[in-house]
Amino acid sequence: MNASGDIVRIFDTTMRDGEQAARINLNTGEKVQIARALERLNVDIIEAGFPASSKGDFEAVARVASEVRGPVIAGLARTKESDITAAAEALRGAARSRIHTFIATSAIHMEYKLRMTPDEVLRETAQAVKLARSITPDVEFSAEDASRSDMDFLAEVFTAAIENGAATLNIPDTVGYAMPYEFEEFCRAIIGRVNRPGVIWSVHCHNDLGLGVANSLAAVRAGARQVECTINGLGERAGNAAMEEIVMSLRTRKDHFGVDTKIDASKFFSTSKLVSGLTGVPVQPNKAVVGINAFAHEAGIHQHGMLCNKATYEIMTPESVGAPGTDLHLGKHSGRHAFSERVEQLGYQLTPEQSSAAFEYFKELCDKKKDVTDGDIEAFLLDRILSLTPEKRYELKDYAVTIGSGGKPTASITLAHDGAETTEAAVGNGPVDASYKAILKLLPFSPELAEFRIRATSELAEAVGEAHVILRYKEIKAQGRGASTDIIEATIRAYIEAVNRLYSAAAAREVAI
Amino acid sequence: MNASGDIVRIFDTTMRDGEQAARINLNTGEKVQIARALERLNVDIIEAGFPASSKGDFEAVARVASEVRGPVIAGLARTKESDITAAAEALRGAARSRIHTFIATSAIHMEYKLRMTPDEVLRETAQAVKLARSITPDVEFSAEDASRSDMDFLAEVFTAAIENGAATLNIPDTVGYAMPYEFEEFCRAIIGRVNRPGVIWSVHCHNDLGLGVANSLAAVRAGARQVECTINGLGERAGNAAMEEIVMSLRTRKDHFGVDTKIDASKFFSTSKLVSGLTGVPVQPNKAVVGINAFAHEAGIHQHGMLCNKATYEIMTPESVGAPGTDLHLGKHSGRHAFSERVEQLGYQLTPEQSSAAFEYFKELCDKKKDVTDGDIEAFLLDRILSLTPEKRYELKDYAVTIGSGGKPTASITLAHDGAETTEAAVGNGPVDASYKAILKLLPFSPELAEFRIRATSELAEAVGEAHVILRYKEIKAQGRGASTDIIEATIRAYIEAVNRLYSAAAAREVAI
Repeated sequence: MNASGDIVRIFDTTMRDGEQAARINLNTGEKVQIARALERLNVDIIEAGFPASSKGDFEAVARVASEVRGPVIAGLARTKESDITAAAEALRGAARSRIHTFIATSAIHMEYKLRMTPDEVLRETAQAVKLARSITPDVEFSAEDASRSDMDFLAEVFTAAIENGAATLNIPDTVGYAMPYEFEEFCRAIIGRVNRPGVIWSVHCHNDLGLGVANSLAAVRAGARQVECTINGLGERAGNAAMEEIVMSLRTRKDHFGVDTKIDASKFFSTSKLVSGLTGVPVQPNKAVVGINAFAHEAGIHQHGMLCNKATYEIMTPESVGAPGTDLHLGKHSGRHAFSERVEQLGYQLTPEQSSAAFEYFKELCDKKKDVTDGDIEAFLLDRILSLTPEKRYELKDYAVTIGSGGKPTASITLAHDGAETTEAAVGNGPVDASYKAILKLLPFSPELAEFRIRATSELAEAVGEAHVILRYKEIKAQGRGASTDIIEATIRAYIEAVNRLYSAAAAREVAI
Repeated sequence: MNASGDIVRIFDTTMRDGEQAARINLNTGEKVQIARALERLNVDIIEAGFPASSKGDFEAVARVASEVRGPVIAGLARTKESDITAAAEALRGAARSRIHTFIATSAIHMEYKLRMTPDEVLRETAQAVKLARSITPDVEFSAEDASRSDMDFLAEVFTAAIENGAATLNIPDTVGYAMPYEFEEFCRAIIGRVNRPGVIWSVHCHNDLGLGVANSLAAVRAGARQVECTINGLGERAGNAAMEEIVMSLRTRKDHFGVDTKIDASKFFSTSKLVSGLTGVPVQPNKAVVGINAFAHEAGIHQHGMLCNKATYEIMTPESVGAPGTDLHLGKHSGRHAFSERVEQLGYQLTPEQSSAAFEYFKELCDKKKDVTDGDIEAFLLDRILSLTPEKRYELKDYAVTIGSGGKPTASITLAHDGAETTEAAVGNGPVDASYKAILKLLPFSPELAEFRIRATSELAEAVGEAHVILRYKEIKAQGRGASTDIIEATIRAYIEAVNRLYSAAAAREVAI
């Protein structure tokens, strides 16, 4: 094995496979925030999107490629010529770019989805890799559904990809079907059969049976030196292998694997929260490494053991993954410097203007509540600073909501639009329903509510409440987030942001509203 | 291998290791609900609690033992004589009972936590198993932190346990440190070294590095025929191995393992929701098998494949785990029969009185909203029917909340208590904060808010909102749940239920409020 043999490259696909599954499209600004957080984590490769799939994806890949200079930036492409040229075009501004092209190699995918013969798949592979390699020196090839493919055919396909210039060969367990022992044998066999010492073998494991991480680690044992994964295990269906679990397994059990990654694990907790906040996909409390209970010892026997010697029940420290120990709260005596430092620790990189605006909001919040928690700050950053809606068509000017056992929940809402303010009132089954009905009266169209989530950002009643709304109109979806110490205000703000983003999304896709 | 060699026994510890981690104590009624759901799932053994740990746990184990007759009911006990007699006493009413005794065997646990020599641990093991076996024929012995224990010593301890009558020997990976390949070798080695063909080997794997399921499956490959696990992977820290993932791995890949379980997997989805509802611990959308996105295909390429042939991207059907396909909604035209059937499908077993009360609430809800979703029904069952507070000291009579950009959020609350109704009002940073401040004025003591969560039960603004509150007073914790189409009412109801349960919990522990 060559000198880089003991480093496992981390290929992040949060913005491609992860976003694909979040039921929403992150906008370009949000993708850049995630990419910057991944850069701080020190990932080797960021798959920023699938440029041929939509104009939005193309633009996001182009922005990330031109702004994020540390990691290699990859774009996904089918073997079609137009996919590869779109990826190349989107990646033009990158310091280092990679075209990642793929085609399915399992019998069922070739027969039913591609309707192609194995020979045709082999030919497509060779042509696509050759084209990609004529544009950029760094080409990765993936054999979709590899774990259910015929080994002989798979070896032929990988060999063709290598001979046409692919330097990284990826073995996806696309449907999460493989078992660790079997996958280790499979990877070892294919690597041995192809037998090209210079290339990097990669895996991409899904989690349908809860084995994405175990299969990724099994492949590392077999010689894989790139792992494709996502923050929080986001991804299609039950998601992809979680980066934080793979990295901490390799690190905690370096005695077992003898390899490591370049990841700065102390950024995991903040990156996890950033991704959860931007995508609206929550992390369950008992999630390994980044769940809020991951380091909590509740049983009396465990607590007793921890007091005697932490190693009795702790195999990695909370600090090593950046989990907040004693939650440091900020308050009205915290200065601009302390605030900026905390914002940075939370994984956010703000422009000077954003930073000033954020500090203003922070001071406002300090007037309302004594302790400002990390969750409060994150909620406000996401709602007020990073909302990034290109155009605020509608703006909330005023709201009033009355609820109680005495009468029907009633809301009045005043929106500013086109230089004028208008007000409507409505009753509903609850304060959220009443507010949304009032807003609908103020709009010229009726979007459908596709998703609606609310949560509190900390354990206190005076916490900032966060709302996440996805609206749908004519097959276009847009998300909105809102945050406020008043959870009803948060839901109203989220709805209005989603309306504004629906207009932008419709304009980008040339759909009339 | 004997005839039962191809069945892997499922030992559920949701109510012991799972509850331990949920930061709250489920009450007896809630435990019985979970136990009945586990019985419907057809688990082999239910670990109902740790009787010596508290009066509440003792009572819950006794109730489950006397009411749930299908599975074996197990109680946990340290090797102390008083623990074993407490477990035996709690299990007296069981059709089939098991005493599960344990002691740590790793050097670090023996030295720092137990402060015992290996010889003392060996002696304790023999004595405890002997005592347990003199009371019940079914004794299980666990060597805590087995995966970090010396193999020779561990073999000695297990041999002593077997010679004194333990029929099931459990190998826990207590701190989630093991790697699948290594754990398989470890289990194979210890099973071979002890070499007693008649006993059942068991494993209990934690998920700190995301490998609980993989390690459990590795142990099955090595010969383990019992797996300890929990619904939703609840448990200390990052939790235990998730039952639904283990069972579906064995079933989907029967070709690989050649063994199966007796579990009725079609009950997984409803059981998962029941446990999440009762413990207040949410399930993340991308959770394998039971997450709401586990069977969602979002990418265009995947959707295309699914239309051509489902097997392109689906290795198990949503129906096989009871995931709702097209969500069937009930409405005002749904009769009592349809309602009862749906309640049962959701995993709830109600008494005739509870069933009638539930139907009343259902009709009330139908007047408020057109479609009543499964989530709505579950929320109401949990709040109104299964709240099971022994005594309702405080009852919500009236509330009114006003919020808006014009003034401070203001709430007035009327509670009935001791035959009298009193009202207080307060302002706060939001409607929840104002309401809680008003309630606090009506109470003779000030509990601390330890946790606070809100969620919407479906994707509609007119959904039922659910609130989950944990209050703490003098080291006693109690949870409360509330549900309403008005999310603020739900938070008020949850707070009051937690107050009532705090009184019961304090009385049970003879603490004055």
